[in-house]
Amino acid sequence: MPQTDTVNRQWILAERPIGEPTDQTLKLVESPLPVAGPGEMLLRIEYLSLDPYMRGRMSDAPSYAPPVQIGEVMTGGTVARVIASQLDGFEVGDLVLSRSGWQDYAVSDGTEVAKLGKAPAHPSWSLGILGMPGFTAWAGLTRIGEPKAGETIAVAAATGPVGATVGQIGKILGCRVVGIAGGPEKCAYAVEELGFDACIDHKSPDFAELLAKACPDGIDVYYENVGGKVLDGVLPLLNPNARVPVCGIISQYNATSLPEGPDRLNWLMAQILRKKLKFQGFIIFDDFGHLYPEFAAQMSGWIESGKIRYREEIIDGLENAPRAFIGLLRGENFGKRVIRVRPAE
Amino acid sequence: MPQTDTVNRQWILAERPIGEPTDQTLKLVESPLPVAGPGEMLLRIEYLSLDPYMRGRMSDAPSYAPPVQIGEVMTGGTVARVIASQLDGFEVGDLVLSRSGWQDYAVSDGTEVAKLGKAPAHPSWSLGILGMPGFTAWAGLTRIGEPKAGETIAVAAATGPVGATVGQIGKILGCRVVGIAGGPEKCAYAVEELGFDACIDHKSPDFAELLAKACPDGIDVYYENVGGKVLDGVLPLLNPNARVPVCGIISQYNATSLPEGPDRLNWLMAQILRKKLKFQGFIIFDDFGHLYPEFAAQMSGWIESGKIRYREEIIDGLENAPRAFIGLLRGENFGKRVIRVRPAE
Repeated sequence: MPQTDTVNRQWILAERPIGEPTDQTLKLVESPLPVAGPGEMLLRIEYLSLDPYMRGRMSDAPSYAPPVQIGEVMTGGTVARVIASQLDGFEVGDLVLSRSGWQDYAVSDGTEVAKLGKAPAHPSWSLGILGMPGFTAWAGLTRIGEPKAGETIAVAAATGPVGATVGQIGKILGCRVVGIAGGPEKCAYAVEELGFDACIDHKSPDFAELLAKACPDGIDVYYENVGGKVLDGVLPLLNPNARVPVCGIISQYNATSLPEGPDRLNWLMAQILRKKLKFQGFIIFDDFGHLYPEFAAQMSGWIESGKIRYREEIIDGLENAPRAFIGLLRGENFGKRVIRVRPAE
Repeated sequence: MPQTDTVNRQWILAERPIGEPTDQTLKLVESPLPVAGPGEMLLRIEYLSLDPYMRGRMSDAPSYAPPVQIGEVMTGGTVARVIASQLDGFEVGDLVLSRSGWQDYAVSDGTEVAKLGKAPAHPSWSLGILGMPGFTAWAGLTRIGEPKAGETIAVAAATGPVGATVGQIGKILGCRVVGIAGGPEKCAYAVEELGFDACIDHKSPDFAELLAKACPDGIDVYYENVGGKVLDGVLPLLNPNARVPVCGIISQYNATSLPEGPDRLNWLMAQILRKKLKFQGFIIFDDFGHLYPEFAAQMSGWIESGKIRYREEIIDGLENAPRAFIGLLRGENFGKRVIRVRPAE
C-alpha cells in the first residue's frame, strides 16, 4: 500500500527487541491526517533515512539519547514537503529536512527543521553525504582522527555512507586508506569506484593476515563503526599514538549478553597505555554541531568537483522499512539505505 | 653494605619475572669503579628513583620502550654527583639528574643529564614532584584531562607521587577531587594533608558504593594509574564527555594471564561510544617534553607558595632496592619511594 492523501501510516514501537529486531518490534497503525494549528505546519514525508543508531533508540539501556517509548512513532531523519503551513518562514511546497520519523505525515512547529531550497538536485542526499552520516565521517576523521598525509587510515563498514566518506576524505588528505567490508563485491567497489588503496573482506577466514598485509606500515587512524572481530584484527596493527574515533559498534547492537572470556578490558587499557592510543566517542551534533557550515561548504565543493562519490540504496515504500532496517543491521545494505515514502511521480 | 669508594655495586636483570618479581629477578654484582675517558664524566649515585614503569622494563612484551636486557644494569632515574670530569660543562662537585640506573657509579657522556645547581634544597625532589612523576601528573591532567572548575576529578593511587600531585592541582583549578587509595591511613592523609574533598579505600568491601556517594555529580576526569577493580568502580560514574588520561595500570603489571570472562572489551567500546568518552595513553617525555619548562616554572611556584605538598619515603641502601620495588608494586609505599644510595654525611 503506497502513501495516500487521506491516511497517516505510522510505525510505532510495539515492544523492545531482545537481540535482533523482529516483525513484532514495530507495528503499523493508521490514523487520519493530523492537522496543523497556528504556528505549525503539516509535512508529508518523501524520504526516511535508515541508520544503525536507531537500534539504540529501541532499547532503554542508558545512552546519550532517550529511547523511543513503547507506542511512540519510531524516530528518524526525513525529507518532507510542506503541504499546509501556519508557520512563518515555511510555505506550501517547501522541501525540508526534518526529524519526522517513520510515518507518512507529521505536524511540526519548525524545531530541528531546515529548508532544502526549491529544487535540490538530490533531496535524499541531505540524509546521507550532505547530512548526518557525511558530517559524522568528516568531523570524526578530521577532528578526532587528525590524519596527516602519508599516514594509514583503516575504516570499517567501508561502503556504508560513513565509511565510504571517511575513506574518500582520507585519500583527499593524502593518506593510505584501507577499507574493511563484507564480501568481494563491496571490497571491489571500495577500491575501483571509491579509490581506496585496499579493501579487506571481514568474512574471509584469513581476515587478520590480509589486513596486516594491506597495512605494512601499521594503522595510524582507525575509524570505528563496527567493533567485534574487525576491531580484534585492527588492534595489533595500531601504531604508537594512533587515534580511534569511535562512531559506532554495529556488530554489538543486537548482542544480548557479553561474549565469553577471558576478559580483555584491562588488556585494552594496557594497549592504550603502551601504544599511547586515543579512543574517543562522539555524537555528531552534540560535539561538533558548530562545525556544520564548514563541513557543508567543503563537502559540497568535493561533490561538485567529483572528488567524493556517493552511493544510495533506495527502497520503495514505508511498509518495507522494518525489514530494510533489520537487513541494515545485518550488513545487507550496499550504500546508504533510504526509504522512498512518497512514490516517484 | 653501604656505598664505598672502591667498588661499584650493580643490580643486573638476572631473569624476566613471571608475575611478581622475586629475589631471583635481579642479581647484585660487584666490579671496580669505571673510568671516565675524554668527553665523559664519572658519576656517583646519591638517590635512585623507584617507579612502577620499571616492571614493564623487566619484560620483553612489546611496549613503548625497549626492555632491559638480561645481564644489563636495571634502568632508573638518579641524582648523582660528578666526581671526575673530562666533559665540557660539568665540573667535579656538580649535582646532576641522570638515568644511571641501579648502581653506585656510572660513566656518562652527558646524554639525558641535567644539572641541579650547586645546592638544591631537596635534591631528591627532582625524581618526584619536580621531575618525571610531577610532570606526568601535571601534563596528563591539564593536557588530556582538561578539567574545568567545578568538575569532579577522580584519581587513583591518590597518595603516590603522581596521584597526590594530580589531586592537588585539581584543587588549585577549582575542581572537586576524590582520591582512591589503599587503607584508612592513606585516605586520611589525602583529605587532611593534601586537601582532597574525599578519599575512598579501594580495599573496602563497599568500595563501589562509597565511591558513588563521594561523586554525587559523577566523574568528569578519571586519572588512571591503577586499572582493575578501581576502574570497574569508576566506569559507571563517568559523565558524558569524561576524559581518562591513562598513565598506568599498576594492578595489572604482575598479571600472568587475562582474567576470566565474560569479555568486556566491546562493552568498554560501547561505554566510550554512548558516553562520548576519551581514553588516552601517554608517555610523558615522548608526548609532552616540549612543555617541561612551563611545568617546572609553575610547579616551583606552587611548591614555594605552599599550594602543593610532597611526601617522600626514603629507604637507605642500594642493597634494599629490589625488596622496596616489590613492595611498591604491592602498594606498600606511602609517598614517593626513593633509595638513598649514598648515606647521609
